[in-house]
Amino acid sequence: MATNDLDFLCINTLRTLAIDAVQKADSGHPGLPMGAAPMAYVLWQKHLKHNPADPAWADRDRFVLSAGHGSMLLYGLLHLTGYQLSMDDLLSFRQFESKTPGHPEYGYTSGVEATTGPLGQGHANAVGMALAERALAHRFNKPGHTLVDHFTYALISDGDVMEGVTCEAASLAGHLKLGKLICLYDSNDVTLDGPANLCFSEDVGKRYEAYGWHVQHVKDGNADLAALDAAIAAAKAETHKPSLIVIKTTIGFGSPNKQGKSSSHGSPLGPDEIALTKKALGWDPEKKFFVPDEALKNFRRALEQGKAAQAAWQQKLDAYAKDSPDLAEEWRRRQMNQLPKGFDWDAVLPQFKNEAAETRGTAGKVLTALSAKLPELLGGDADLGGSTKTQVKDQGFFDGQTGAGRNIAFGIREHAMAAIANGVAYHGGLRIYDATFFCFSDYMRPAVRLAAISHLPVIHVWTHDSVGLGEDGPTHEAVEHLAALRAMPGLYTVRPCDGAESAEAWRLALERTKGPTGIVLTRQKVAGLDRTKLGHARGLHQGAYVLSDAAGFKAIIIASGSEVQFALTAQADLQKQGVPVRVVSMPCWEAFRAQPQSYKDQVLPPATTARVSIEAGATFGWREWVGDKGIAIGVDRYGASAPWEVIYEKLGLTPSHLVSVVKQLVK
Amino acid sequence: MATNDLDFLCINTLRTLAIDAVQKADSGHPGLPMGAAPMAYVLWQKHLKHNPADPAWADRDRFVLSAGHGSMLLYGLLHLTGYQLSMDDLLSFRQFESKTPGHPEYGYTSGVEATTGPLGQGHANAVGMALAERALAHRFNKPGHTLVDHFTYALISDGDVMEGVTCEAASLAGHLKLGKLICLYDSNDVTLDGPANLCFSEDVGKRYEAYGWHVQHVKDGNADLAALDAAIAAAKAETHKPSLIVIKTTIGFGSPNKQGKSSSHGSPLGPDEIALTKKALGWDPEKKFFVPDEALKNFRRALEQGKAAQAAWQQKLDAYAKDSPDLAEEWRRRQMNQLPKGFDWDAVLPQFKNEAAETRGTAGKVLTALSAKLPELLGGDADLGGSTKTQVKDQGFFDGQTGAGRNIAFGIREHAMAAIANGVAYHGGLRIYDATFFCFSDYMRPAVRLAAISHLPVIHVWTHDSVGLGEDGPTHEAVEHLAALRAMPGLYTVRPCDGAESAEAWRLALERTKGPTGIVLTRQKVAGLDRTKLGHARGLHQGAYVLSDAAGFKAIIIASGSEVQFALTAQADLQKQGVPVRVVSMPCWEAFRAQPQSYKDQVLPPATTARVSIEAGATFGWREWVGDKGIAIGVDRYGASAPWEVIYEKLGLTPSHLVSVVKQLVK
Repeated sequence: MATNDLDFLCINTLRTLAIDAVQKADSGHPGLPMGAAPMAYVLWQKHLKHNPADPAWADRDRFVLSAGHGSMLLYGLLHLTGYQLSMDDLLSFRQFESKTPGHPEYGYTSGVEATTGPLGQGHANAVGMALAERALAHRFNKPGHTLVDHFTYALISDGDVMEGVTCEAASLAGHLKLGKLICLYDSNDVTLDGPANLCFSEDVGKRYEAYGWHVQHVKDGNADLAALDAAIAAAKAETHKPSLIVIKTTIGFGSPNKQGKSSSHGSPLGPDEIALTKKALGWDPEKKFFVPDEALKNFRRALEQGKAAQAAWQQKLDAYAKDSPDLAEEWRRRQMNQLPKGFDWDAVLPQFKNEAAETRGTAGKVLTALSAKLPELLGGDADLGGSTKTQVKDQGFFDGQTGAGRNIAFGIREHAMAAIANGVAYHGGLRIYDATFFCFSDYMRPAVRLAAISHLPVIHVWTHDSVGLGEDGPTHEAVEHLAALRAMPGLYTVRPCDGAESAEAWRLALERTKGPTGIVLTRQKVAGLDRTKLGHARGLHQGAYVLSDAAGFKAIIIASGSEVQFALTAQADLQKQGVPVRVVSMPCWEAFRAQPQSYKDQVLPPATTARVSIEAGATFGWREWVGDKGIAIGVDRYGASAPWEVIYEKLGLTPSHLVSVVKQLVK
Repeated sequence: MATNDLDFLCINTLRTLAIDAVQKADSGHPGLPMGAAPMAYVLWQKHLKHNPADPAWADRDRFVLSAGHGSMLLYGLLHLTGYQLSMDDLLSFRQFESKTPGHPEYGYTSGVEATTGPLGQGHANAVGMALAERALAHRFNKPGHTLVDHFTYALISDGDVMEGVTCEAASLAGHLKLGKLICLYDSNDVTLDGPANLCFSEDVGKRYEAYGWHVQHVKDGNADLAALDAAIAAAKAETHKPSLIVIKTTIGFGSPNKQGKSSSHGSPLGPDEIALTKKALGWDPEKKFFVPDEALKNFRRALEQGKAAQAAWQQKLDAYAKDSPDLAEEWRRRQMNQLPKGFDWDAVLPQFKNEAAETRGTAGKVLTALSAKLPELLGGDADLGGSTKTQVKDQGFFDGQTGAGRNIAFGIREHAMAAIANGVAYHGGLRIYDATFFCFSDYMRPAVRLAAISHLPVIHVWTHDSVGLGEDGPTHEAVEHLAALRAMPGLYTVRPCDGAESAEAWRLALERTKGPTGIVLTRQKVAGLDRTKLGHARGLHQGAYVLSDAAGFKAIIIASGSEVQFALTAQADLQKQGVPVRVVSMPCWEAFRAQPQSYKDQVLPPATTARVSIEAGATFGWREWVGDKGIAIGVDRYGASAPWEVIYEKLGLTPSHLVSVVKQLVK
């Protein structure tokens, strides 16, 4: 790449926009954009396949700014290359409901591929995107038709590479040989609190080599555009290994007094230093948010290039549609996150007999049945597939080179699993699930939260959902996890009570296209429910429903999951004792809250204040449903290591305890 | 090391005890103990400095079984070497309240140094223990007096090295050059779901070299005891780098049909295979839980060796006490987790004037004041010290070689930070705190939970505690975190409202020696409260208290943290409008729940059902305090990127909204 003044004019435009926006907002991070502008410019100008006029073009390259605090770099690129992000938007940086929030938010700003900021997440998202590309290529590419063929780029920082979620994701990417994943590591040796060597002295390149990555080094990332260009080209050429390019840069480049220092990291430079910086960069210190015409023109070439590239691809798609109309239709609907036309849930979902079963098992059968009909279903587990029952037979393990296989062996990497799942969801064209023990949802939590913020339809299968896990003991037994996840806005937590509800839970999760769902399942067997005599499990979609009623009921028992069986036993017992009781199955609080008040009052009549809940988890939050006069039975301590029946007995999770509590209440 | 039949007799005793215990419990993990018994035997028999008769001996070597699922290996070692763990205990493996739960639990079983099982945690705990050793050595060792001088060992598995928390902790250990940390990596290439190469193909040794570790390899960990011995000796000799010994073993060693396979990992071998295995190991297949006399005698030499070693150390301590009586007294009280005799809180805690301040700032001043008086205080942050205000001036950064410096630069490694803090707390002799943004408590959650399970007095300082964080936006703004942490049994979550409560929060945290505390602090300024006219902040220790009363109050406003100021403003406004209102400050739900009902009724009289809560977080759980008729004001959505005052206004976190809600309620 021959470099010239225009290149640096463009780079300095990116730098000064970031400087000015951060100063105007009086908050933000100028240092990264100033240091990383050259690599971003070279990538976007010379390599990135994208069409600013259609940010949804399916085969675009993906670019993730993992170091989301450098958001102004991305906003600058989006504005300058012609995305729907105006100068007014840049002027509103970090203002309420502007398109330029402090950290990039997916779905909020066109061209933002992932919500980033919490470090490490974007890097792992990029692994998921690269994985998705392979999975889609395997399904759709045919001889003579290459519909799916793009790179995934991530710009990562010192903070990203320190985070554990990055380590997990990078290790898996190396194992899977995701050759079309390319990470540009902005190695500026400075973090928020000072020089990175205060806490960080490892050899990052060597570490990534140990993961099986292709590692290159660019010594002068501030000025050597040719080296940046060559390294990216070499990274693209190496398709058997993911690539890391370690790029030495100077944080806050151009600022005479702050470059190379943490003072340029997370605060505005200040008017005086900005003036000095602009002078040093050959910029007019008087001009703010200045975009030279030549620079804009150069950046905006992306529009014509993108248009041409997408048009060429569209021709491919049209030809493909002629040769393979069914696959083309599948492609279309999957891009829209739609199920097949007229998808017959009743025919697909398995029917369960009235016999005792683990809900992890019934849900596993549901998954298997769905997987046979929905090729977009892709997922895996964190080395617990034999326990979570989420490995789908005959689908094979995912191969990162060919994209074949729909069971992903994520390894013992729960956090990356969830963040990679987010990446697959960001990418589109697939429905992703992951699985582990419910207790380990804690390991995944930062990524689960980002899925909720970003409205990603990721499905988490969490099994071994309570002290019913038994012998493995308190370190593996979920207690507070239902409450902790129910508190998270935008996540649906569903805890089915039998096979029928397991099926409806999967249906709910798949029909939900604008947010994540957790399906919470037992290790232990639960009684089969005789649905011919009980409320239909489709009530799960309303969150709670009357499972079994009693004329003139004096109390309501509300239960979820494995404790619903106890509610029914207690109901029968109480009926014999002359205490008619209604039983409500409440698998999903979030769905119930979304119902009209009339439905809620129908299920839980306000007049009936004698209410008892039973759930093998913390009672935290149950007051909302049982009311001031009700009683919540649950587990407000850590579990124990013992056969589960013993633990249930010791902790009072029994029909007889339930009976006595109800009687105490109605007395 | 010359090896002989006795060595293998001992090793096979460990193996067969594990086999038999897992079979008897009909659950558990025999594979790891069978494969790792040789390394554990060599370590415990030839190197480990410990006294089974006094598991609390301060200068013992620490041994952490990070791969906690192999608990029977540890229980076998503890029983055989003479700890308080009887054969009856082994026979009760995985039974309710036995001393041999499924995974090792600290405080439950003598000799168990850490609660392990959730993978990666133990490895990181060991880093914390090694760090603690250095910090204590720096404080207490004097020329001619080496009071603190021990190694920390961890036995880690494939699963451990895959976990992100391990990566973070190992990277920091390498950076800190924790030379007395030695990890034995049981590299058996098999995980629960099959061969590890299904998901894991990195070069672990090379990765640890990249972290700056000293890496050795033992090719035959099943039989080459001399190589194991030599590698441990070499690891001890290298004191400038932490050591990793990559030891190739065979999972389920000795089982003719299951060794080397995942089928030996997490399930009993079954009676037939056990018989075959015992034969293969030269064991009598008829005997269960058999301990040959020679083996027991050999193991029990640990008792005399330990007694002698501790006696020699005790002599050192006695001599030390003569030379340095003050330090010896400090040593004593710190080992007991006691504050200095007659510690004068009132004199030490700073007084705050009635002026607006960030609670992160007031709490930072409290920490600085306490740090000057309490040399046991040690802590740090995840690269946000400038923001969390937890860096204590003049204390310097922690140096892993000398142990000097009391500010630990944990790096951008929140999860390892919390797990390392747990390790420091397990070690004893120090009071550890850590700090980051409240939102990132999610990254730390698995370790916070283990501190709660293990009753560790770790202090978490979580700042930027709400949408009051402002411009950084929703990815950085805590919303559901208060609820999610309040749901966790054993953790105290304290959210002070001003300087006075900040001081009491630190006091509460330090006085709490049996569990973790989170102190939740604002980024933004809150109004100074005129404590001469308000309830005393010592009420914080009761969790909630009447901050400002009004004769004939018709409603109660309950608030925490930054919203307490609004409650007071609203109270004044309502008073003018003829609506007297009581204001309750409720910084700590857990402490309030622990009060007698009479106190609770005094603060929140049951007759007053007009109650409004205001807190800049999810309302989840507040129904417990506001009751059926009350209203909770909070944030049940994700935040926004904007100046904090704008967000507060848009979300209704204002005195005027509070006033209108109260009026609506009392009408």
